[in-house]
Amino acid sequence: MNIKDTIRTVPHWPIEGVMFRDITTLMQDPAAFRKTCDQFYERYKDMKIDKVVGIDARGFIFGAVLAYQLNVGFVPIRKKGKLPPETISQDYALEYGTATVEISENGIARGEKCLIVDDLIATGGTIYAATQLVESLGGEILECAFIVELPDLHGKEKIAQYPIFTLTEFEGE
Amino acid sequence: MNIKDTIRTVPHWPIEGVMFRDITTLMQDPAAFRKTCDQFYERYKDMKIDKVVGIDARGFIFGAVLAYQLNVGFVPIRKKGKLPPETISQDYALEYGTATVEISENGIARGEKCLIVDDLIATGGTIYAATQLVESLGGEILECAFIVELPDLHGKEKIAQYPIFTLTEFEGE
Repeated sequence: MNIKDTIRTVPHWPIEGVMFRDITTLMQDPAAFRKTCDQFYERYKDMKIDKVVGIDARGFIFGAVLAYQLNVGFVPIRKKGKLPPETISQDYALEYGTATVEISENGIARGEKCLIVDDLIATGGTIYAATQLVESLGGEILECAFIVELPDLHGKEKIAQYPIFTLTEFEGE
Repeated sequence: MNIKDTIRTVPHWPIEGVMFRDITTLMQDPAAFRKTCDQFYERYKDMKIDKVVGIDARGFIFGAVLAYQLNVGFVPIRKKGKLPPETISQDYALEYGTATVEISENGIARGEKCLIVDDLIATGGTIYAATQLVESLGGEILECAFIVELPDLHGKEKIAQYPIFTLTEFEGE
């Protein structure tokens, strides 16, 4: 079973011209969901990770399973205003305007080895902001992990200073 | 180790008068996170559940781990506009105004046995809307599971027709 085949493409959603890669179909499929989680676990089980950091909201799904499997803590990165104080924030640019993500100040201790998980890397704005939050708390980023990469959008270039792992990719965005 | 002791209370957040029960401190703690997940698994491992339904966003964290452990599919319920088509929607009342949640039309097949997971039950508006979505797709709701109950807010009364399981509760909201 190929994980990529369980990801559905929704043309022109949420806006005209975007080919949306929908992983809800992957998650609904028990074998695909398990295989995805186990591929992450196989890669990270011996890396001595201290914290899995998951990005709101689909990164929570795969990050939480991995944290459980690795027997480490799970730390969420969320949109502004969703986490109680004390938090630190990082702005990042969108196509129009900016967005802000936050992490709990006590989420990561200085020197902890962190893995950041999200479902997809597109332009890389969110994951770059996430790396800055983890660095600000003194965390060491061992890798950034994604299920899907959209190479046409060059997101990897924004976080080129970190190791990156992706399970599959879609061209033609 | 008592799970309740790992949940932090943030007074007057997000608004004056609310005692916010913060489970990020639970999730960051490897032993508390594992124990929470394992308590759900122990309860549900023999119930022949077909789908775990998790509510955006903290319900994703515990719902996804449970779906993985049970080797079943995971189905997200999200705020309006976050899931690609085709979806069905359910409105529900907030203190001021209304909100809408959605589920993928193909997320649950008629007759599938479903468990709905969220982190916390307060007034019960969101979970009630979630039960209506699952019922609309023909799913059979075996139980609704939460880490935290706030009994002063009487949320259980809104979903009294379903079995409910909670790990801990906080009075004095």
